Amino acid sequence: MPISVLQFGLGEIGTRIAKLLTEKEGIEIIGATDIDPEKVGLNLSGYLGIEEELGVKVLEDPQEVFSKEPDLVLHSTGSHVPDIYPQLEQCIKAGASVISTTEELSYPYLRNPDLSRDLDEMAEKEGVSVLGTGINPGFIMDYLPTVVSGPMQEVQSVFVQRIQDASVRRKPLQSKIGVGLDQEDFQTEIAEEGGHVGLAESVAIVGGGMGLELEEITETIEPVIAEEGKTTDFFHADPGQVIGIKQVSIGRYKGEALITLDLRMYLDAEEPRDYIKIEGSPEMELTLSGGTHGDVATPAVAVNCIPKIVEASPGLHTMITLPSPAYFEDLDNKDIILSNILS
Amino acid sequence: MPISVLQFGLGEIGTRIAKLLTEKEGIEIIGATDIDPEKVGLNLSGYLGIEEELGVKVLEDPQEVFSKEPDLVLHSTGSHVPDIYPQLEQCIKAGASVISTTEELSYPYLRNPDLSRDLDEMAEKEGVSVLGTGINPGFIMDYLPTVVSGPMQEVQSVFVQRIQDASVRRKPLQSKIGVGLDQEDFQTEIAEEGGHVGLAESVAIVGGGMGLELEEITETIEPVIAEEGKTTDFFHADPGQVIGIKQVSIGRYKGEALITLDLRMYLDAEEPRDYIKIEGSPEMELTLSGGTHGDVATPAVAVNCIPKIVEASPGLHTMITLPSPAYFEDLDNKDIILSNILS
Repeated sequence: MPISVLQFGLGEIGTRIAKLLTEKEGIEIIGATDIDPEKVGLNLSGYLGIEEELGVKVLEDPQEVFSKEPDLVLHSTGSHVPDIYPQLEQCIKAGASVISTTEELSYPYLRNPDLSRDLDEMAEKEGVSVLGTGINPGFIMDYLPTVVSGPMQEVQSVFVQRIQDASVRRKPLQSKIGVGLDQEDFQTEIAEEGGHVGLAESVAIVGGGMGLELEEITETIEPVIAEEGKTTDFFHADPGQVIGIKQVSIGRYKGEALITLDLRMYLDAEEPRDYIKIEGSPEMELTLSGGTHGDVATPAVAVNCIPKIVEASPGLHTMITLPSPAYFEDLDNKDIILSNILS
Repeated sequence: MPISVLQFGLGEIGTRIAKLLTEKEGIEIIGATDIDPEKVGLNLSGYLGIEEELGVKVLEDPQEVFSKEPDLVLHSTGSHVPDIYPQLEQCIKAGASVISTTEELSYPYLRNPDLSRDLDEMAEKEGVSVLGTGINPGFIMDYLPTVVSGPMQEVQSVFVQRIQDASVRRKPLQSKIGVGLDQEDFQTEIAEEGGHVGLAESVAIVGGGMGLELEEITETIEPVIAEEGKTTDFFHADPGQVIGIKQVSIGRYKGEALITLDLRMYLDAEEPRDYIKIEGSPEMELTLSGGTHGDVATPAVAVNCIPKIVEASPGLHTMITLPSPAYFEDLDNKDIILSNILS
């Protein structure tokens, strides 16, 4: 029996997740929902541009799909836990496990400890598992450095720097990082809104993953300013205007910075990459060349977590409480044992 | 209550594990065993060179320690599953979980499927968990690439290259890679003995972790030949003699190489590093600068797996069935929740 899945949210990421789900064996999409009037009523296969006829129409109300009792919900609607809490509650009470790309859900205890406890209790009671994941937060700046500490006898400090070239990204990302704004508008429109959501959560994932008792997590956001005029498909920035963001979140213990996460997303950023350096014994220094494109990688992480969440104990999980997601083709083949093939 | 541990084997790795165990909170070494007559009877604190008096004497017979009912055994005695099977059986039947650095145990199904099934059943029956791990096999060339595939929508092929400078390694490693041998002696003494143990297991971990149905795993071993004379603290190689090893293991499906692991260990190797490249979408290319020193990292991986194995379901595990090991200081603090510290 394939696992039955509801795709909850058909924005950019949700749509890519739905398409990726159709490419996997052992997974059946039995419903898709979105509130966008232009999407409601569409045939999902046509909307995704795939040949296979899924027999699924995009609905506005997920409750109609819950009557079909999906095993699992892939959820991509918002960034903040309080906003999406009622949706999670609806999924859990319908008996479905949830994998969500909600940024704050990657480590929900940080900003919403009470809601997190409620989610955990509710999921345990209903016998389902809930996970927030994605590439950032969820993998590159938090889960991966935690994994990389696995061969270390001693950790003194963790530094992660993610440099993304925003020139090749889509409009919402360029908008999110303030491309084309004056510096004073950046302060009110970007900096006060918090910029990229989830950087402090990433600090907490690293700290929680290594059992480090952080006493404080801070975040700062600065604009990156154009030295020369720059034009993208969507925006233009004159010299002196904003072309992106430099956001830093630091986790401290007794005033000392133990974890520093440095995220830079701006137009024409040179040498985009993900870089992890953990001081200690042995020192670990790792570079992912070219960086990791969020629009491709976030759907992949979410889908690749499916084999892990279906076997997880009930309750609210984070990436550090589950076995690592890995690429898979066929959900029914995930427990393959390789024997007697040595020649 | 701290977790009580028996250190089973006090060779180079076992000794380093024991020392690292004494540096962790929430873990108590209640026994240590080794068959070396020069170690039997020694006071463990003195042998490890630590100030804390552990009150443990090195014993020849582990059975004496099992009467104290250790929760966990850290096991480092051999490389091959059939050789250490009776020791694992002894641990399991004494009701202790096991973390072992036995290379073949990192993926025991490959060479010993029947013994693996027996271990799994025995561990389940006794309610304990068994894991084989280490840095290589166990982490760098297998677990880490599997993790790195987590953000991938499609995987076409996996290539991992580990280049180690053997000049800075200890005598047994230099001996294992044939330093100073003539080329014909290399064939009989090194190549036919299989070289580094565990490279084919690493291929199987990657294949199993990604659900890839490999049909064949092959291994080749070649000597690296001195162009000029080289002298280490332990050996000398004239031009034309062996200074190390190049070992390649390939996992194939329908004749196509899906997984290629390339291990080079030789004197004065330039740019020692670990390099992972996974072709697919998105392509992942990762470099760990300087490589990862096995004598430091293997004990760390083994000890850092403790929090994961004590919470694991009973049975025989591999790295891909458990949450990732991560650095920790205090076993009692491993489930720390970070809340309300955002400022």
